[in-house]
Amino acid sequence: MASIYRSLTINISKEMMCFSDFPIPADSPNYMHHSKILKYFRMYAEHFKLLKHIRLQTSVKSVRQRSDFSRTGQWEVVTENRDGQEERHVFDAVICCSGHYTYPNLPLKDFPGIDTFEGKYFHSWDYKGPEDMYGKRVVVIGIGNSGGDIAVEGSRVAEQVYLSTRRGAWVIRQVSDNGLPVDMKYNTRFVHILFQLLPMRFFNWFGEKKLNAMYDHTMYALKPKHRLFSQIPVINDDLPFKILSGAVIVKPNVKEIQGSTVVFDDGSVVEKVDIIVFATGYNYGFPYLPSSAMYKSGHRVGLYKHVFPPNLEHPTLAVVGFIHALGAIMPQAEMQARWVVRAFRGYKKLPSNQAMIKAIENDTKSIDKNYIVSKLTPLQVDFVTYMDDLAGEIGVRPSLLWLFFTDYPLFKRVFWGPVTAYQYRLTGPGKWEGARSAIFTQFDRMYQPLKTRQVCHGCCFFSILVPQYSFI
Amino acid sequence: MASIYRSLTINISKEMMCFSDFPIPADSPNYMHHSKILKYFRMYAEHFKLLKHIRLQTSVKSVRQRSDFSRTGQWEVVTENRDGQEERHVFDAVICCSGHYTYPNLPLKDFPGIDTFEGKYFHSWDYKGPEDMYGKRVVVIGIGNSGGDIAVEGSRVAEQVYLSTRRGAWVIRQVSDNGLPVDMKYNTRFVHILFQLLPMRFFNWFGEKKLNAMYDHTMYALKPKHRLFSQIPVINDDLPFKILSGAVIVKPNVKEIQGSTVVFDDGSVVEKVDIIVFATGYNYGFPYLPSSAMYKSGHRVGLYKHVFPPNLEHPTLAVVGFIHALGAIMPQAEMQARWVVRAFRGYKKLPSNQAMIKAIENDTKSIDKNYIVSKLTPLQVDFVTYMDDLAGEIGVRPSLLWLFFTDYPLFKRVFWGPVTAYQYRLTGPGKWEGARSAIFTQFDRMYQPLKTRQVCHGCCFFSILVPQYSFI
Repeated sequence: MASIYRSLTINISKEMMCFSDFPIPADSPNYMHHSKILKYFRMYAEHFKLLKHIRLQTSVKSVRQRSDFSRTGQWEVVTENRDGQEERHVFDAVICCSGHYTYPNLPLKDFPGIDTFEGKYFHSWDYKGPEDMYGKRVVVIGIGNSGGDIAVEGSRVAEQVYLSTRRGAWVIRQVSDNGLPVDMKYNTRFVHILFQLLPMRFFNWFGEKKLNAMYDHTMYALKPKHRLFSQIPVINDDLPFKILSGAVIVKPNVKEIQGSTVVFDDGSVVEKVDIIVFATGYNYGFPYLPSSAMYKSGHRVGLYKHVFPPNLEHPTLAVVGFIHALGAIMPQAEMQARWVVRAFRGYKKLPSNQAMIKAIENDTKSIDKNYIVSKLTPLQVDFVTYMDDLAGEIGVRPSLLWLFFTDYPLFKRVFWGPVTAYQYRLTGPGKWEGARSAIFTQFDRMYQPLKTRQVCHGCCFFSILVPQYSFI
Repeated sequence: MASIYRSLTINISKEMMCFSDFPIPADSPNYMHHSKILKYFRMYAEHFKLLKHIRLQTSVKSVRQRSDFSRTGQWEVVTENRDGQEERHVFDAVICCSGHYTYPNLPLKDFPGIDTFEGKYFHSWDYKGPEDMYGKRVVVIGIGNSGGDIAVEGSRVAEQVYLSTRRGAWVIRQVSDNGLPVDMKYNTRFVHILFQLLPMRFFNWFGEKKLNAMYDHTMYALKPKHRLFSQIPVINDDLPFKILSGAVIVKPNVKEIQGSTVVFDDGSVVEKVDIIVFATGYNYGFPYLPSSAMYKSGHRVGLYKHVFPPNLEHPTLAVVGFIHALGAIMPQAEMQARWVVRAFRGYKKLPSNQAMIKAIENDTKSIDKNYIVSKLTPLQVDFVTYMDDLAGEIGVRPSLLWLFFTDYPLFKRVFWGPVTAYQYRLTGPGKWEGARSAIFTQFDRMYQPLKTRQVCHGCCFFSILVPQYSFI
């Protein structure tokens, strides 16, 4: 099971995370606390009357091909309900949505002496809040999004927090230029096209320069060896000030632990450590699937376009939401689901197994070339490229050229504006009549929750701003 | 007695807040938690062997002119120790350092219906931490530094925080360009000279543009009617993201309170409010002084250069630290103290009472013209102008022209670099031999606490940066 901490707020803005035919209410904040996201999911399920199809609080013990799989493509699924009762079902097709934040990675063997540690240690998966950290000395290992969040939150009550990182990280703010959500500002088709046209080293140079202008990653001891776009950056608005005010002290990798002393790679030591938090990421796995269904490619599970196992006789098994991009998982998972349904139904035929395997191996090579991947982060995709690719499979990819000639106001917003999921409901199967209007009003919904105090009556500034936003 | 909350971190960087002949240790963070500032004060007191001269935990009940004041200038002071015992003393001179954060301003009559409020309300003076706010609905009234801090801190545990402001505010970040402390970046003589040369509306335009580029104060519902440099801005690095994520909702002025409902000026209401925090500032006063010693000028206590009452026969009473500028109080109070001591000793004669009163009235006019003042914030000064003015009285003002010809490397740092208090120890009475070196090493001390993880071995970036900082 995945786990979150109480204070968790999503790091993707609402217009970029929402499902393509169900905008998040205008008055919701742009970055939503997890409780508000749950409410949105509930609204979605209610609106589309999904709950009657979902059996909650039931765990899947195993998914196996039936003996007549070659003929039927069917699966036998064993479930266990909350009372521990097992049940067997036969399904025509199965989608695995268990994600990649389920199995905590706790690499204790990489931390010699951890058995001598006199304090308390745990994985970030177990972190719920900073209660135990009052007045304590805390070492957080790992500077992913969890590590950064826990270090910052802990530092508000701890005596001192140390944030240990092997590689360093590029850290970005959610409050971007002019206060726009960073993804609404930069995750646009225009930027995407620039990325196709100009060399990546230009964007690395430009992006790193911009980040360093906010706070110099060298001075703040954060600078990683890898370039900005080789890995998804850490998103944290509070970390820089916590570093500047000394509440969080950035340290190198931990070399060893001796009792309550933590020794770092540079020979420096921190004494009297009370708590070590391993924000060391997650392993992935599908233990409920037959190993024969899984095809391994490099570090990753080899899935055709990150969805279909390539070595089955029938395309009746799919993995959805097992993806990693600089963009929200929700629209990506939705797009995968739309494709999967069409494949299951036979509307869309998959290539031959050989062709899928070849495509997977090519993907793996391309991922290895473009990104820093490892056992824990075995894959990364480019958000727009991937969305467009799947949209092409489904037949819902918006044509910029067509829009340019037939609906120029819409073209402008699709081209210059953020790549919101509504763009994939303009045409083709699953077309939604509200999509065009949702695109025209996306900045209104961004602006709406901030309109809580009228400012500056009749002054020029206000009237300049409004057209600017609606222009995009 | 002044009051602080547990999480309070100073909003002035260490090089800008420290006393002129006693730099804060290199490894201290740039923005210090109050516990670290207390340690620094203790180090200072120990270094200069001050403690033997200070009687702690003693309150002053009254300060009165002795009957022979016209001849002696002496004062009779009644104190009370912690056991409640009164004592009478005779002093040749008295310095009042009780500041202006002592008497909470709780303007309940401006909030009709507060007597019907069913929740809990208190002044920010009483705020120590967010414990009582877990899961609660909180309205914070006032967007000063306290109001902003309490709203942000409360929002981490509260169900919802509303931040009500009548005027709005310009909000700045402590993490400035390239991550430098904002005051080290902008509080320079070069900038100060620009302010003398160019019209204020240019700086307002430029500064507001820069702030809005970080996050648009109109969009964030913060924009005040006053211009940026008419009032000291609010310093808060966390507020913008809290607004964007909806944890803090900015609201206009409170119109009235009805039970647990708070009604705002725009007619909007917030229901089920559990807690109201009045971050409504402080009144000032010197109740222990004879009213005859106090001269009133406009909203403010009329003090010659914000230090000396102008209507006494002898200059044996002074007020230190009763000042408000975009800069730290410590070096200003120290400068005042240096001047006061010279005046008390007779080394420096004050002007006639008439001349002082005239100067005070001119100051009041100039303050009213340049700043937004009110009963609660009756005065504001320009940091460098004020420091230089007092330094001129003492004879310790650095001469840029002299430095240019005699010590160009030092000139560069004094001209382009931050106006650290060391500049006032280069020459004249109280000259400190370490001052020049302290100026040369001020950026080293800024950088030092951040050097906690070696980055990027042998790469060009590091070697570019270091000269850049040491150049300034």
